[in-house]
Amino acid sequence: MDQIFRRARTFSGWRDAEVSDVLLEAIYDLAKMGPTSANCSPMRVLFLRSKEAKERLRPALDAGNVDKTMAAPATAIVAYDLEFYEKLPSLFPHTDARSWFAGNAAKIEETAQRNGSLQGAYLIIAARALGIDCGPMSGFDRAKVDAEFFAGTAWRSNFLCNLGHGDPERLHPRSPRLDFDAACRLL
Amino acid sequence: MDQIFRRARTFSGWRDAEVSDVLLEAIYDLAKMGPTSANCSPMRVLFLRSKEAKERLRPALDAGNVDKTMAAPATAIVAYDLEFYEKLPSLFPHTDARSWFAGNAAKIEETAQRNGSLQGAYLIIAARALGIDCGPMSGFDRAKVDAEFFAGTAWRSNFLCNLGHGDPERLHPRSPRLDFDAACRLL
Repeated sequence: MDQIFRRARTFSGWRDAEVSDVLLEAIYDLAKMGPTSANCSPMRVLFLRSKEAKERLRPALDAGNVDKTMAAPATAIVAYDLEFYEKLPSLFPHTDARSWFAGNAAKIEETAQRNGSLQGAYLIIAARALGIDCGPMSGFDRAKVDAEFFAGTAWRSNFLCNLGHGDPERLHPRSPRLDFDAACRLL
Repeated sequence: MDQIFRRARTFSGWRDAEVSDVLLEAIYDLAKMGPTSANCSPMRVLFLRSKEAKERLRPALDAGNVDKTMAAPATAIVAYDLEFYEKLPSLFPHTDARSWFAGNAAKIEETAQRNGSLQGAYLIIAARALGIDCGPMSGFDRAKVDAEFFAGTAWRSNFLCNLGHGDPERLHPRSPRLDFDAACRLL
C-alpha cells in the first residue's frame, strides 16, 4: 500500500536508468487484469522509447511538460479504441454485447472514456507495483497527438504517462488531499 | 499484485459479513493518494449501507444488477463534482488553477470524467488492498441516480461499486483479456 499509494509520488525528474520492453509488457499484463464494464477493455497504449518517437510528441506538449517528457526513459500515450466493441464477441462471449454499442456513438464514447481511464489508473498502479515511477499528465493537445500517432485509426489519446526511475531530489512537497468528510457521505 | 490484480475478481455473490464505516474511510483515505491532474481530485463517493438507502437505488438499477446490489454489504455511488475546481486554491495552491476551468463547461466535464474515473479505479484497488472485494457496475440509469441522490448539487454519478466479502462459490470463470500485442505498440 505504501508502494502503490502512500509513498508513491508523481515524478518530474528521472534517473538515468532504462525501462526495458519486457518490463513495459509486464506492466500491461498486470494492468489488463483490472475490471472493466462487460470486460470491454478499451485501453490501448503506445509506448514511446526512442528519441525519434519523443520528438514527434514534443509539439503537442504544454510548455511545462516538455523537459520532463523528453528526459523520461519512456512515455506512454494512454489511449482508447472507439472500436473496442468489435472485440466483445471474444472478450464477453456469453451474450451479444457488441450490439449494445454498435451505432451508438454517445455510449461508445462514454464507455471508452470511463473504462479507458479506469484502465489507465490500473496501468499507473501496476507500474508502481513493479517498481516503476510514473508522471501522468493531461497537459497536451489531444487533437495533435491523435493526428500525429493515430491518424486513420479509431484510437484516441486520453492522457500521457512518463515512466522511469524517479529522482526524489527533484520532488516538490506533496499537495494536500480532500478529507473523507469533504468528499464522501454515508447513507 | 495477486491481491489487487491477478487473483482479484468481480464478485456478484456476498458472504454475510459487514464492511464497517471505519474500513470505508480507510479505503477512501488510501485511494485519495492516487494522482489526478493538477491534484484536482473530483471524485465524490456516496456509500449506501442501510436498507433504506439501497431501496432508493433499486429503481435505477438494470435488472441484472438488482439482486447482487441489494445483497452487498455496501454500495458505493462513485461520482464526481462538476464544481471540483472551486477546491483548487487549496488543492493546488501554487498557481491559479481555478481559472483554467471556471466557465469552461467542456473542460470541466472532461476533466471530472477522466480524473473521477482514475480515482474510481484507485478506490477499487484500495478496497482490494485492504481485503474488501468489489463488484463495479455501469448497468444503471445515471439520470435517475442523480435525481434521487444528487438533486440540487453538482455531483454526478459515474459508476457503482458493490463492496463486501465476495463468495467465491458464485464466481463465473474469468473472461479473457487482450494480449499486449493486441492493445499496445512500441515506438
